[in-house]
Amino acid sequence: MICSKEVMEFFKACENFVLGCSDDLVSPFKLYLSSIKNDENEARALVDALPSIKKQLREDLLFFMESDPAVDSEEEVVLAYPGFKAIRYHRIAHKLYELKEFLYARIIAEEAHVQTGVDIHPGAQIASPFFIDHGTGIVIGETTIIGKRAKIYQSVTLGALSLSKGHRIHGVKRHPTIGDDVTIYAGVSILGGDVKIGNRVTIGSNVFLTESIPDDMKVTIGKPQLVLQKRER
Amino acid sequence: MICSKEVMEFFKACENFVLGCSDDLVSPFKLYLSSIKNDENEARALVDALPSIKKQLREDLLFFMESDPAVDSEEEVVLAYPGFKAIRYHRIAHKLYELKEFLYARIIAEEAHVQTGVDIHPGAQIASPFFIDHGTGIVIGETTIIGKRAKIYQSVTLGALSLSKGHRIHGVKRHPTIGDDVTIYAGVSILGGDVKIGNRVTIGSNVFLTESIPDDMKVTIGKPQLVLQKRER
Amino acid sequence: MICSKEVMEFFKACENFVLGCSDDLVSPFKLYLSSIKNDENEARALVDALPSIKKQLREDLLFFMESDPAVDSEEEVVLAYPGFKAIRYHRIAHKLYELKEFLYARIIAEEAHVQTGVDIHPGAQIASPFFIDHGTGIVIGETTIIGKRAKIYQSVTLGALSLSKGHRIHGVKRHPTIGDDVTIYAGVSILGGDVKIGNRVTIGSNVFLTESIPDDMKVTIGKPQLVLQKRER
Repeated sequence: MICSKEVMEFFKACENFVLGCSDDLVSPFKLYLSSIKNDENEARALVDALPSIKKQLREDLLFFMESDPAVDSEEEVVLAYPGFKAIRYHRIAHKLYELKEFLYARIIAEEAHVQTGVDIHPGAQIASPFFIDHGTGIVIGETTIIGKRAKIYQSVTLGALSLSKGHRIHGVKRHPTIGDDVTIYAGVSILGGDVKIGNRVTIGSNVFLTESIPDDMKVTIGKPQLVLQKRER
Repeated sequence: MICSKEVMEFFKACENFVLGCSDDLVSPFKLYLSSIKNDENEARALVDALPSIKKQLREDLLFFMESDPAVDSEEEVVLAYPGFKAIRYHRIAHKLYELKEFLYARIIAEEAHVQTGVDIHPGAQIASPFFIDHGTGIVIGETTIIGKRAKIYQSVTLGALSLSKGHRIHGVKRHPTIGDDVTIYAGVSILGGDVKIGNRVTIGSNVFLTESIPDDMKVTIGKPQLVLQKRER
Repeated sequence: MICSKEVMEFFKACENFVLGCSDDLVSPFKLYLSSIKNDENEARALVDALPSIKKQLREDLLFFMESDPAVDSEEEVVLAYPGFKAIRYHRIAHKLYELKEFLYARIIAEEAHVQTGVDIHPGAQIASPFFIDHGTGIVIGETTIIGKRAKIYQSVTLGALSLSKGHRIHGVKRHPTIGDDVTIYAGVSILGGDVKIGNRVTIGSNVFLTESIPDDMKVTIGKPQLVLQKRER
């Protein structure tokens, strides 16, 4: 049985570097060799990627500062924003996924899910900067592609359409492609591998989409009729 | 004050057995006597049930492998699937519930909720195999009954209808009954103790149901009209 | 970098007092001075508030007992109800927020979010008693005001309307005001700083509200048309 604890120690060493808490790249390298795989080339590839992940996260952090009315300080984003934690776990997990270390990538992604309620499959390709608010209930599938400056709110699903086929469609592009400067409000579901959301699109709360949307559109649902009745007392 | 930590140590010993990591049934027995209740008959009843829970979980595991397009290995399901963790906590908590050790059952169920976002009341009766994908936001109430080969996605509620009556309806059947081979997609709510969902029913995303559905049906909601507007730039 | 661990130690000392596990007010005082801020007046203000928080939580606890059909004992509420955990973290975090210790308040609130899936901004003003069931996916924004005896179910958002303005609207009242004796069922979103929900209002599942509701009303959505088809076998 693989030890999640050792994988998370390796992750923490990477996290310290990408957050700028330490300049130490030797620890991630050594921990990779001892806890992930005894393959020097792979360890080097991972460690070589950390500086660019650090740069991406810096962009993410500034985008969080700009996007949330409630934010008070950079420190608050690092210490108390689940969305920032989710993206920082994801960027490292995604690198492991690229190195085909799927299981380790998934262990890190699932740890992020436990801590934040945000379930991003390590296969998802997410450009920087990226903003997630609140986060709980967000699901982003394995073959999702997301452009720059996306903003995503709680309970959004970027998912697959034909789940009934199960494991037989392993490897197929099953999840949507999202352009640059897209905002997706709470409760939206966008399903299907052929679905493309254009640049500068805004998608209103609770929209359910299984089709593509061209650039520069705003998509909402007709407001459902409310029924008001005097309450029995 | 009861110590959750000791209850979780007992749980971990059970979990090691049901996952096949250990054949030791003495530890669960002893830990039951020290942390749950000093009742040899009850401890024996619990431990005698563990082999059949182990068998159920094996069926669950194979069903997870078959049902999820993204899955890569059995190890991944055990280590990184919150749905599999939720069902494994539930099967042990449910046995404690049957032994009328409600508080201990709830402590284990709530630990699963913390770790997975899946809130299954230990009273719920769930046949094997069972599949939960993503999981966050799933709520399954105390008197729910679920048949074989159910598949349930994120943010599904199997809940009660008349919550305003509060504690006065303690013990009444308040939650739905689900047949065999039922698939319930994300965001569905099924509410009420009289509601029966037939065998081989599929329920599409975001359906809100307070009535029964016969066998072999597919239930969806008429797609809400989308409003597309050119976005101001 | 601030140490979350020390903040949580301080929180635990407060929690022991407000839960009635200990009468010790010296520990919270000393831990405040060592882990939050070396300001005796602020530490005293915090500690002086703990007895009234304890009283509020006692009211909350009794309201939980009365409101949930599944509850079995007071001990169960304290040990296994995520909603009760969320409100207990919130009441202490909110006091820190009032003392303008925003970052520490947010660290405690985010710990509650991790453990319960309930995301209450420490700025939110919530009267007692208060009841949250299940909890996962609840989001309550910074400038929300909630009256007495509110009941809130899973996946409810009390949020802001014009998020696109981002950090420029920091400090503005952006979230709704909820009266006394209001029940808000699962999946409801109420958005906007001008929205006022009257006393004794009940809001049915999945309602999406951006307008005020007068006293004594019941608000539901017209049930969406279900489409039933015989399933292909």
